[in-house]
Amino acid sequence: MRTLQVDLGDRSYPIYIGSGLLNEAGLIFAKHQLSKKSPVLIVTDDHVAPLYLKRVEENLQAEGYRTVSKVVKAGEKAKSLDVFHDVMTAAIEGGLDRRSAVVALGGGVVGDLAGFVAATYMRGVPFVQMPTTILAHDSSVGGKVAINHPLAKNMIGAFHQPELVLYDVDTLRTLPEREIRAGLSEMVKHGLIWDAEFAAWCGENTDRLLALDPETLSYGLTMGCSIKAQVVSQDERELGLRAILNLGHTIGHALEAIGGYGEFLHGEAISIGMAASALIAVNRGADRALYAETVRLLGGFGLPTVMPEHLDEERIIGAMMHDKKFKEQQLVFVLPVAIGQVEIVSDVKVEEVRRVIRELKKEGPHV
Amino acid sequence: MRTLQVDLGDRSYPIYIGSGLLNEAGLIFAKHQLSKKSPVLIVTDDHVAPLYLKRVEENLQAEGYRTVSKVVKAGEKAKSLDVFHDVMTAAIEGGLDRRSAVVALGGGVVGDLAGFVAATYMRGVPFVQMPTTILAHDSSVGGKVAINHPLAKNMIGAFHQPELVLYDVDTLRTLPEREIRAGLSEMVKHGLIWDAEFAAWCGENTDRLLALDPETLSYGLTMGCSIKAQVVSQDERELGLRAILNLGHTIGHALEAIGGYGEFLHGEAISIGMAASALIAVNRGADRALYAETVRLLGGFGLPTVMPEHLDEERIIGAMMHDKKFKEQQLVFVLPVAIGQVEIVSDVKVEEVRRVIRELKKEGPHV
Ligand SMILES: NC(=O)c1ccc[n+]([C@@H]2O[C@H](COP(=O)([O-])OP(=O)(O)OC[C@H]3O[C@@H](n4cnc5c(N)ncnc54)[C@H](O)[C@@H]3O)[C@@H](O)[C@H]2O)c1
Ligand SMILES: NC(=O)c1ccc[n+]([C@@H]2O[C@H](COP(=O)([O-])OP(=O)(O)OC[C@H]3O[C@@H](n4cnc5c(N)ncnc54)[C@H](O)[C@@H]3O)[C@@H](O)[C@H]2O)c1
Ligand SMILES: [Zn+2]
Ligand SMILES: [Zn+2]
Repeated sequence: MRTLQVDLGDRSYPIYIGSGLLNEAGLIFAKHQLSKKSPVLIVTDDHVAPLYLKRVEENLQAEGYRTVSKVVKAGEKAKSLDVFHDVMTAAIEGGLDRRSAVVALGGGVVGDLAGFVAATYMRGVPFVQMPTTILAHDSSVGGKVAINHPLAKNMIGAFHQPELVLYDVDTLRTLPEREIRAGLSEMVKHGLIWDAEFAAWCGENTDRLLALDPETLSYGLTMGCSIKAQVVSQDERELGLRAILNLGHTIGHALEAIGGYGEFLHGEAISIGMAASALIAVNRGADRALYAETVRLLGGFGLPTVMPEHLDEERIIGAMMHDKKFKEQQLVFVLPVAIGQVEIVSDVKVEEVRRVIRELKKEGPHV
Repeated sequence: MRTLQVDLGDRSYPIYIGSGLLNEAGLIFAKHQLSKKSPVLIVTDDHVAPLYLKRVEENLQAEGYRTVSKVVKAGEKAKSLDVFHDVMTAAIEGGLDRRSAVVALGGGVVGDLAGFVAATYMRGVPFVQMPTTILAHDSSVGGKVAINHPLAKNMIGAFHQPELVLYDVDTLRTLPEREIRAGLSEMVKHGLIWDAEFAAWCGENTDRLLALDPETLSYGLTMGCSIKAQVVSQDERELGLRAILNLGHTIGHALEAIGGYGEFLHGEAISIGMAASALIAVNRGADRALYAETVRLLGGFGLPTVMPEHLDEERIIGAMMHDKKFKEQQLVFVLPVAIGQVEIVSDVKVEEVRRVIRELKKEGPHV
């Protein structure tokens, strides 16, 4: 088991990464002094529940915890106000009080949803992340929680740091292949924004990562979590630096929105977004190799880097306009400077985005 | 104009109380460096909008602010997830960004609703309270914001302190009489929990307060806000002391819930709740004069202090069980010790509550 620490003063917390950790949940909860007198709510989805819910319930119960579980339908649509309402109902009916912990057992969707419940149930209760996807190495760290509004993603949310993150890498073995690729997209992102060496390592270990080789995967996830933790520790509330984590996300979120949160997985959408950001940088004078290397890395994982022809340019731009990375109506963008380094620029013109949308539509599938 | 300060470290803020303050809104916003580049969202209800919305819009616009307004239907039912969703839609369509202020122009309902929008729109934006009811001298101070779940009141919320509170007492002149009485209920509460002298002053100035005599009213509101601010400064997140503000609220919230948030105004419900708390204290050995004086004070304002015969005991108890003042399944209650002093006890048995419900049903109207 590896342990990382997210340094946030009195909101600091550990990330435990390792094999078999679900079987130690009860002990770890007790160690963190989560109340045994108050019921614990486990939120999960209907893909994860049949695989891991019983194990977590039994493990917590064996340690003296009372548990209540709420299983939501899998998929991004669970991040809606309706499902949020249903989870709140389960919390109230389950008798949760102010010391009750809300546990997210699942991927980023369950993490964001359950986290927003934890942030707002009785104005905030303890929260525990038990990520079960690769992507969630990103989403489970940093305290951003949110649900979607039909007009824009993650529009309704809070900052609510967990008490701990319990990452059992064994759970990743049941992930569908497409989810594995999509999750690795955020791992590559962490290399691209912060650490050229790690980005190169991702390129060299693509096959081992895709095959979920335990040692390789654990190292990659630990590095990814560690980069995220470093950034968040320096800027919890995204007043500056933290925005670099949004590389590829402005366009990515727009693609997710116009695809009705069904066409693209989050990791796929931001993969296209990262390619687009690199191309904007190139159009502004960066070396074309920056774009080529970005596409090579992402493409190696089987991630998309071209803009599907059928996506309407106007709709992409329209969806971006609703995205929250607009500061006082200015287009704020994270652009790569080199592999492992990005900058936040606030003067990207809509025309520049239109241009790369067109260029990325023409771009044939790269090899 | 009187200015009070709520001391909360880097979340400190002023409360401005006075006549004609709506006409200085723009200047005060600018003084507080609220962004002029970002649209401001004014949330109000359909009773308040025809009276004061235009004035606030024009005043802000004259100072260079762009405004968007959202008018919700008046009443407690506006504190629902549905209306919350509609206000979020208005915020997104209005192009609000992270520096945009959300303004609550109205009573506690609008304050709690708009405050929860401000707490969660893009994970939190600046918030301004412009209370227009007497009750809101309480609700606008302290940063508690929330909406209701059909199963329990204020169950979904956050702590989100405003940037400032702008309290124009002129607006109170258009309040319906029943709302005036209900609002004064929280003012009396502030005396009962903290300041015997102020409680006595409320008793001596009942008629002047009910008649909205400007000097008397301003003094009473300033004292009420000041007591609230002192308590909140010492315990922002209700880990201990702040709970004393809930005097009368455990039973009060239950009455509101079973009345479908329509039968009782909040101030009326907590008036009965305060009478009930005094009676529990008497049944536990306190001097009967404590109850008699509580009832005399509240009754003086025309507030109810007996339990309506038609309210079913089981339903009251059931609604209380969902209330959040239960710590690990124990009944936590704020009980008076003397006028101006309360204690938090955690061993009140359900049977004690049943007994006062029955006693308060038998109690004839007091004179
Ligand atoms: N809060 C943040 O900082 C942050 C960061 C990045 C992404 N996100 C959010 O995360 C979400 C995407 O997360 P995700 O990719 O984990 O999606 P997800 O939670 O939908 O999980 C992906 C799919 O895998 C299934 N699944 C999960 N674990 C499994 C397992 N162990 N075995 C088999 N199937 C499993 C799920 O049921 C789902 O169908 C998006 O909503 C995105 O906005 C949040
Ligand atoms: N957040 C807190 O700390 C806190 C504290 C106490 C109460 N509350 C909440 O406050 C709410 C009650 O507040 P309220 O009593 O102000 O209710 P309210 O907001 O519903 O206002 C009462 C009525 O008066 C009308 N009104 C408001 N201002 C007016 C004016 N100037 N002229 C004419 N009509 C006017 C409103 O339209 C409404 O019909 C409850 O939801 C309660 O839970 C919150
Ligand atoms: Zn992401
Ligand atoms: Zn109240």
